[in-house]
Amino acid sequence: MDKEKVNDPYAGLGVSSKKEGVHKAIKNLSKGLYPGAFCQIVSVGSSLPKEIQDNYVQILHSDGVGTKSNVAYIAMREGFGYQILKTLPQDAVVMNTDDMACVGVTNDIYISNHIARNANRVNDEALGEIIGGYSDLFNKMETLGIHLYNAGGETADVGSYTTTMGIDVTASSIIPKSEVIDCNNIKENQYIVGLASYGKAKYEDRENSGIRSNGLTLAINTLLHPDYRKYKEVMDQTVPEDNLFVGKYHLEDKLKGTNLKVVDAILSPTRTYLPVLNKLKEEKVKIYGIIHCSGGGLTKSINFGNNIAYIKDGINKFETPAIFKEIQEIRNISDYNMYQTFNMGIGMEIIVDTEDDANKIIEVSNGFNIDAKIIGHTEKTNQGNLVKINNDSKLVYSK
Amino acid sequence: MDKEKVNDPYAGLGVSSKKEGVHKAIKNLSKGLYPGAFCQIVSVGSSLPKEIQDNYVQILHSDGVGTKSNVAYIAMREGFGYQILKTLPQDAVVMNTDDMACVGVTNDIYISNHIARNANRVNDEALGEIIGGYSDLFNKMETLGIHLYNAGGETADVGSYTTTMGIDVTASSIIPKSEVIDCNNIKENQYIVGLASYGKAKYEDRENSGIRSNGLTLAINTLLHPDYRKYKEVMDQTVPEDNLFVGKYHLEDKLKGTNLKVVDAILSPTRTYLPVLNKLKEEKVKIYGIIHCSGGGLTKSINFGNNIAYIKDGINKFETPAIFKEIQEIRNISDYNMYQTFNMGIGMEIIVDTEDDANKIIEVSNGFNIDAKIIGHTEKTNQGNLVKINNDSKLVYSK
Repeated sequence: MDKEKVNDPYAGLGVSSKKEGVHKAIKNLSKGLYPGAFCQIVSVGSSLPKEIQDNYVQILHSDGVGTKSNVAYIAMREGFGYQILKTLPQDAVVMNTDDMACVGVTNDIYISNHIARNANRVNDEALGEIIGGYSDLFNKMETLGIHLYNAGGETADVGSYTTTMGIDVTASSIIPKSEVIDCNNIKENQYIVGLASYGKAKYEDRENSGIRSNGLTLAINTLLHPDYRKYKEVMDQTVPEDNLFVGKYHLEDKLKGTNLKVVDAILSPTRTYLPVLNKLKEEKVKIYGIIHCSGGGLTKSINFGNNIAYIKDGINKFETPAIFKEIQEIRNISDYNMYQTFNMGIGMEIIVDTEDDANKIIEVSNGFNIDAKIIGHTEKTNQGNLVKINNDSKLVYSK
Repeated sequence: MDKEKVNDPYAGLGVSSKKEGVHKAIKNLSKGLYPGAFCQIVSVGSSLPKEIQDNYVQILHSDGVGTKSNVAYIAMREGFGYQILKTLPQDAVVMNTDDMACVGVTNDIYISNHIARNANRVNDEALGEIIGGYSDLFNKMETLGIHLYNAGGETADVGSYTTTMGIDVTASSIIPKSEVIDCNNIKENQYIVGLASYGKAKYEDRENSGIRSNGLTLAINTLLHPDYRKYKEVMDQTVPEDNLFVGKYHLEDKLKGTNLKVVDAILSPTRTYLPVLNKLKEEKVKIYGIIHCSGGGLTKSINFGNNIAYIKDGINKFETPAIFKEIQEIRNISDYNMYQTFNMGIGMEIIVDTEDDANKIIEVSNGFNIDAKIIGHTEKTNQGNLVKINNDSKLVYSK
């Protein structure tokens, strides 16, 4: 069987990676002021003076930790202590801020948190660690010159549909229109610079596996041992048990090819690129597009730009992080599917017009101890967007 | 046994109605610019000109449908069709907008929606109805002069912790500081005007039971028949089955004392008071405080104001809606607990200084076919806030 294009690895896991139903359903909703931008941009509201309405825009964005919280839940139950929950807020926040960064938001972001929990399983002490994690993150970011403000939140005890916990955030920010980054501006013959998702950035406390917060349902169920099936509350009851927790790892095991325990590899806090992108804004680097390699992994860019081919022939300049290699090997996933599910070591792609700008990004990124390289360039297509990875004819994605 | 103060009706249902753990955990997070306001108010961000920062504030708010979505889920499974899901967005939105209205936001509100679903149970067609419900609501509100803007959203397929669906919203709005309503301004000898949660407002399509979206876990499990225990996915597995679905009703049954089917009574869309409050703002009625009788019901006001006694001796002017009477009777819940769990027919309390203003509110409210009455007044206490209901010495709540 040709495993290149078949075998959606998510097929048996109750996750629709392409969300076709969602795309169909949202067609009647407004796309905002910049329909081609990475995330929705809206006006600031008619209560403000006309001049402000004309010159500023607002970004409101919702996203969350997803099923990564279940790993923290299992670890809590396995004796790792409540403090294992403390980094979930970073995942929830960064999944928002780093999407917003793609349209030009790099500072002054308001964070509203939403926790859905089963109160009998995630008790008040656990909740305290999570909420405390938000204030720790805000304090930490403040030392980097990035202002994140608590704008309140809600904890809902909804055990009749939540078996463990959902950790979500909505973030908001206002920026001048002049700072908006709109992927519709991406042109041919531009440079694509990739920023590493792994390693240890200057502002991180420990080594990062690079997993971020996408593809986690697949990662968890591939890496972790069937022993964890005893926690029925983290098992989707609509999915055959045989598909879940098919791996070989216990949380305290070392992940092959790393010095990381599996629990720390999976729960590596999602790295924020805000310090890098904020500095690039300060230094007035002219950016044409930024793609957060979230859902869709290294093929995410296919949704942005007009008739643009993203020729990513330099992905191999980055080493694929061990966690992705291990997932691929255990579940026998094709390269084709891996690249459209995971970030594969590159969390963010920045598109610029000149080699000088590309080198400036690399310099700034390296200054934060984050590896960065030119991973490709753009070309014009006749029809629709396209992503080609590593000059491999089997790794061509079109839209 | 004295049933007045004991028997927290939620005790066996996995819901902490007082959320003491949350209050403890948030103590390190900023309370915003007006710590006494009904919901958190923050600055607008330093990207805006100083004059705008000085004169405007931002409200970002998160809340959702809660377990009411499970009733829609059951109805969908029982053959009521996907369209039964269509009013859930109104619940999610109004739970936000009507909290925000309490600090002075009555128009120009941006809505970001978040759906957590089990994709194998809530399919793309169901999702389409929900997302379509948002655009229907926005269109409907527009005809009333209330502008709600779609600001994007996220649908997360998280079946490993979500058994059915979580329907949540974060809303944002900017208002001039001069329009902020801060409950800290509530004084003694002021009038409390209550607005009905039941009946059929001019802008509603059908009769409203008055249930809104609080107390639903208790309502559902009290009213609905044990037959529905077959839907394990709406049963909190940490709660003894005997506590769940202890009622006598099937969804299509008439609710005693009403012409409403039980499904329509429970799923009555949460009434928004925005049209009323927006008109009051236009007419410059001087409002000292607004309390949305959400979690905490008619005792919610105890959290606001400084050393204020809310003497609500006129609650009896409203008839208690049948749905609350039935819940109380079936589960044998004390009056004491009923008043601190449900709105009991009054969805919003507005506090004003003069009888003229009170009468103006009643007039505007009646203009929308919403019953409104003076239900009490405020007094000063020596220490802490207090709520007293119907001059009943057994219905005194202190803080």
